[in-house]
Amino acid sequence: MALADIDQDEDATVEAITSTTVYVCITCRRASDPEDAPRPGLALARATARAAEGTGVTVRQVHCLANCNRALSAAIRCDGTWAYVFGGLEAESDAAALIEGARLLARAEDGIMPWRGRPEVLKRGLIARVPPLDFMQETE
Amino acid sequence: MALADIDQDEDATVEAITSTTVYVCITCRRASDPEDAPRPGLALARATARAAEGTGVTVRQVHCLANCNRALSAAIRCDGTWAYVFGGLEAESDAAALIEGARLLARAEDGIMPWRGRPEVLKRGLIARVPPLDFMQETE
Repeated sequence: MALADIDQDEDATVEAITSTTVYVCITCRRASDPEDAPRPGLALARATARAAEGTGVTVRQVHCLANCNRALSAAIRCDGTWAYVFGGLEAESDAAALIEGARLLARAEDGIMPWRGRPEVLKRGLIARVPPLDFMQETE
Repeated sequence: MALADIDQDEDATVEAITSTTVYVCITCRRASDPEDAPRPGLALARATARAAEGTGVTVRQVHCLANCNRALSAAIRCDGTWAYVFGGLEAESDAAALIEGARLLARAEDGIMPWRGRPEVLKRGLIARVPPLDFMQETE
């Protein structure tokens, strides 16, 4: 492989990472939490933003991913990939897994987050996924 | 309103509808269904395609939306809107509701499917939603 090819590959990876976004619901709380307590969703969003530093992954706070019964919630996607929604996250421990999932997805040539190497919480916490805009029909 | 304005509005509506897609999982079955029985997800996909005729809404078959525990599953979105995942759908009765939801979303200027007027099954069956690509931060 020529040096120019390596540079091109690196450029492509940087571009993919830049479009990679983790959306964290800041309204999410456990059913047992009082309404006026600090929201663990917000704590997860802040921890995820810290974990994203230097990775090029964008972290966005969102008010609701409509996964309230299985909080805490986050979604991951890049431009042109499938979008993934995760639930059952922990504010204290799962920020790094979200960033790792985002980086796995950014590197996936087929736009699908690989199962192999995926953090455990992004396996057991998978809620749903949505195809990319240019997705074509799959048939029986 | 001048006639030209009306034409322009109609063009905009047609364009929004054209980019409107319903993804129906064709693998979905009830837990009690035998593995080799015809999949009710496929029946829902076919019924939805029939219900879409003449509306401009695109219906795409997909192998898995990762909502298997709360099947039958479908997702709806337009270019630039939030994407919605629904579960607990019935093959025999819910195709028209999916198309109605898609048309509501296509007409929504804020990219959010309105609650008012939304078919009941798209209220109680809401699994999750994902922001559009150009979504910006919401803050506490």
